[in-house]
Amino acid sequence: MNLVNGVESDAISARDRGLAYGDGVFRTFRLRGGKPVLWWRQYAKLGADCKALRISCPASDVFERDLAVIAGRHSDCVVKIIVTRGSSERGYAISAESAPVRVVSASPSPEYPRHYYERGVRVHLCRNRLAAQPALAGIKHLNRLENVLARSEWSDPEIAEGLMCDAEDNVICGTMTNLFLARGGVLMTPDLARCGVAGVQRERVIELALINNIPARISSVSIDNLLAADELFLVNSVIGVWQIAALDRKTWNAGPLTAQIRRWLDHAQDR
Amino acid sequence: MNLVNGVESDAISARDRGLAYGDGVFRTFRLRGGKPVLWWRQYAKLGADCKALRISCPASDVFERDLAVIAGRHSDCVVKIIVTRGSSERGYAISAESAPVRVVSASPSPEYPRHYYERGVRVHLCRNRLAAQPALAGIKHLNRLENVLARSEWSDPEIAEGLMCDAEDNVICGTMTNLFLARGGVLMTPDLARCGVAGVQRERVIELALINNIPARISSVSIDNLLAADELFLVNSVIGVWQIAALDRKTWNAGPLTAQIRRWLDHAQDR
Repeated sequence: MNLVNGVESDAISARDRGLAYGDGVFRTFRLRGGKPVLWWRQYAKLGADCKALRISCPASDVFERDLAVIAGRHSDCVVKIIVTRGSSERGYAISAESAPVRVVSASPSPEYPRHYYERGVRVHLCRNRLAAQPALAGIKHLNRLENVLARSEWSDPEIAEGLMCDAEDNVICGTMTNLFLARGGVLMTPDLARCGVAGVQRERVIELALINNIPARISSVSIDNLLAADELFLVNSVIGVWQIAALDRKTWNAGPLTAQIRRWLDHAQDR
Repeated sequence: MNLVNGVESDAISARDRGLAYGDGVFRTFRLRGGKPVLWWRQYAKLGADCKALRISCPASDVFERDLAVIAGRHSDCVVKIIVTRGSSERGYAISAESAPVRVVSASPSPEYPRHYYERGVRVHLCRNRLAAQPALAGIKHLNRLENVLARSEWSDPEIAEGLMCDAEDNVICGTMTNLFLARGGVLMTPDLARCGVAGVQRERVIELALINNIPARISSVSIDNLLAADELFLVNSVIGVWQIAALDRKTWNAGPLTAQIRRWLDHAQDR
């Protein structure tokens, strides 16, 4: 089901700037037992991303009412929220009259194979690159053709995710996930100052590492760094944590730090 | 009015990938006396852009029927065509079942001040940059947040357009136009191999210059090149040709080559 501005509807305006220009932002997360998981974090990111694009984000309770309606129908599902700048006259100029449009949609919770969590996943190194755009880096906006192109590089169902680099061969993220490396007990995640999306789970993993005295760094990550890592794992709000078991011919065994991070995330459900 | 897949409607699916990811392309052009101006060129670009994104472009006659419906209501207007990849399950993966969606919309023809054509226009040099993304460069796709951000840099109605550079200070285009420079009788337009949109009017100007023995070059253009130009002009399918009369404190007089190009464009209406 979809709610558009709070009303059940499958339709948005054909003149919406979200369609015309990708002029909006989104979040994707789970509803579990009728509750939006980590809602306050999701809303904080939604608000910050709207602010970065100078879109006026609806209040938290507006979304909470939508989520309650969804929960009444689907207590366990994946929710996607889109906020667009709304409609305007033709042209790039932002009109003071544009009223933001919100779309809240429920999709079935995906069932991933159990071995994704036990042994880990096989990943592909994408040829498509992320362009460096500091003005949009980190924001979960609706301009996602790079991710679409990268995801179209493989159809092998044994490959769970693709890793994306920037034009200078820095590894940035997965097509739908954030990436972490562990080496010698130090956790590392790519710097997203020039491209990539700064997800809620990435923020949580960094916090949980620091709370638990695991040194963590945000830095540039090379392919050599990847191949030299003791453990690699991918996170997002829908999948949780997937360790990377294989990248081309290189393989990794299930590692203790990834398992530890997953336990911490599971036990800190509301934080 | 809007036609969505040929049916008069103001709505597209809230699950359309055009909204979710900007997964689609567009064209904007004039309908004049009921006829789509340079339709064969617009359709050729639409088809090429769809092909670049592996979207199956509807046949020309499908759009021609839509345009005839629009022309019956508005014989002189601006038409925008959007083709999206259509709807799919949540996620970046492209589904074989996605059926492209076409939106054909009419908007009133804009009335630009006469002095835009006689004396030229004032332009702003945008601080927002275009990211280098060779996989998407030249394509008129729906990921246009960079243009939206750049256009939001000015509200002075005396400024008609903003010029955009890439991160290396190469001048690429206007927010909604392609750019030409003339110096010493040679025409130059920025190389769009890494960013920018290759418009129909740009293609026509290059062809008309070459047909008329005006040497033309596609190359990188620096701000110094801009300031040293004898004439600068902007083109697109809606505005036609605007000479640049002022950029910050630098000014230019109306020049003979811009006027000549405009005459050639006007006299080659169907080519």
